[in-house]
Amino acid sequence: MIFKIALCQMPGVEDKNKNMETAEKMVREAAENGAEIISLPEIWPCLYSRRYFRANAETEDGPLVQAMSRWAKENGIYLVGGSIPLLRGDDMYNTCFVFSREGEIIAVHDKAHMFDIAIRGGITFKESDSFTQGDSTTTFETEYGTMGVEICFDVRFPELARKTALEGAKVIFLPAAFNMTTGPAHWQLSMRARALDNQVYFAACSPARDENGPYVAYGHSLVASPWGDVKAEADEKPQIVYCDIDTDYEEDIRQQLPLLRQRRPELY
Amino acid sequence: MIFKIALCQMPGVEDKNKNMETAEKMVREAAENGAEIISLPEIWPCLYSRRYFRANAETEDGPLVQAMSRWAKENGIYLVGGSIPLLRGDDMYNTCFVFSREGEIIAVHDKAHMFDIAIRGGITFKESDSFTQGDSTTTFETEYGTMGVEICFDVRFPELARKTALEGAKVIFLPAAFNMTTGPAHWQLSMRARALDNQVYFAACSPARDENGPYVAYGHSLVASPWGDVKAEADEKPQIVYCDIDTDYEEDIRQQLPLLRQRRPELY
Repeated sequence: MIFKIALCQMPGVEDKNKNMETAEKMVREAAENGAEIISLPEIWPCLYSRRYFRANAETEDGPLVQAMSRWAKENGIYLVGGSIPLLRGDDMYNTCFVFSREGEIIAVHDKAHMFDIAIRGGITFKESDSFTQGDSTTTFETEYGTMGVEICFDVRFPELARKTALEGAKVIFLPAAFNMTTGPAHWQLSMRARALDNQVYFAACSPARDENGPYVAYGHSLVASPWGDVKAEADEKPQIVYCDIDTDYEEDIRQQLPLLRQRRPELY
Repeated sequence: MIFKIALCQMPGVEDKNKNMETAEKMVREAAENGAEIISLPEIWPCLYSRRYFRANAETEDGPLVQAMSRWAKENGIYLVGGSIPLLRGDDMYNTCFVFSREGEIIAVHDKAHMFDIAIRGGITFKESDSFTQGDSTTTFETEYGTMGVEICFDVRFPELARKTALEGAKVIFLPAAFNMTTGPAHWQLSMRARALDNQVYFAACSPARDENGPYVAYGHSLVASPWGDVKAEADEKPQIVYCDIDTDYEEDIRQQLPLLRQRRPELY
């Protein structure tokens, strides 16, 4: 079975309403071009900087989630809603909502690994000052099979993608925003390795790069195949990346190189 | 602390005695050039094909292990003895012996994942017809810290390298023999990903390529750094690959990008 997915590499600005307009427009364009599952990037409603998170955070019944639900329903597509700063009481989460073709929430992933790094001469960021971490893997069901979701820094930990794949995921979506230190060094390597090791398609959706923003995203939204090669990849500019997902090809790879079956879980 | 390692990308032939001469010569040359830990490739005593394994297999007290012990002692180096077909009763294992500077066996790793694949238009191999699989991770102690060993197909399973790294390995050695299907597609990607994810040096030692042999090895012995880049890499021809291992750099990477500490073992 072959179906098309799309990754909306959005340009982000300070104004939430403007970002909502951009997201709605890109989702519609992707749907018109035949995409069945469409992803937005990480923290797309605002710029990726501590001072913007809480100001733009919403609850699950706020306008952001309502808007995404409407876009999914109006276009009749599955929407992997990137992530938004989500409020639950006083706690804030970096959260991905996934919507069915009818606009219903079918999965919620809270980023489970906080991006706390301090690279000398490069980037320093302490996400755990802002967000509370989630505690689970996340999958959702479609007529094409089970799909998985994780968020950005989650990809650093092979255990999470492995668990998601063992739960049946055929494609793992990763709303993400690597930067100009880790992006050139690790973005493609990490996505390709997770795809190859777990024999899944791995689809990473980044914001477009804004050289003048508070956080300069790497861009390069891409889809890696179960054979570990890159099937589609953006440069750094705003654009929609399309990729055909071939579940028969994936099954074929799993038969020829049966890594998931050859694991020795009794050893690790 | 900085110390040098060497990977002997040996040309292999049918004659075991000739291979022993080649191995001895390369180990001596590497030691003379200052290498402190020296690795041989997978199944270096014979060609990598089912019909050669049992004919060249030996027990732990046979001439192969005795010779390797002598090479380590004579040169005063740690020897990661690639792997040999090892007999234990009727069972045969694909086994790596590691020797101290005094020639003592300080670690034994039996390949834990059997190379059973059948790629259409590419390679078909069923290693489990010949070998019994091992059941453990393997580390050894040096004055530079703990080191790890796994063998070839073991690298396909991120769990094993992760467990080895959590047991303290600073460098993971991988005697290996990828082929002309999986080598170009997956060799560098797999080594770099294991190094990056586990914040270790990952040192993979292959035989040189013989286009006319029964199994055409990819070659490209390499060392990947804890940042995921390739520090040294061979082409396909016989040669010794040298690399300086910098444990301070490794520790620095682990501080700046603290992946090993940020794991969420309660989730997976």
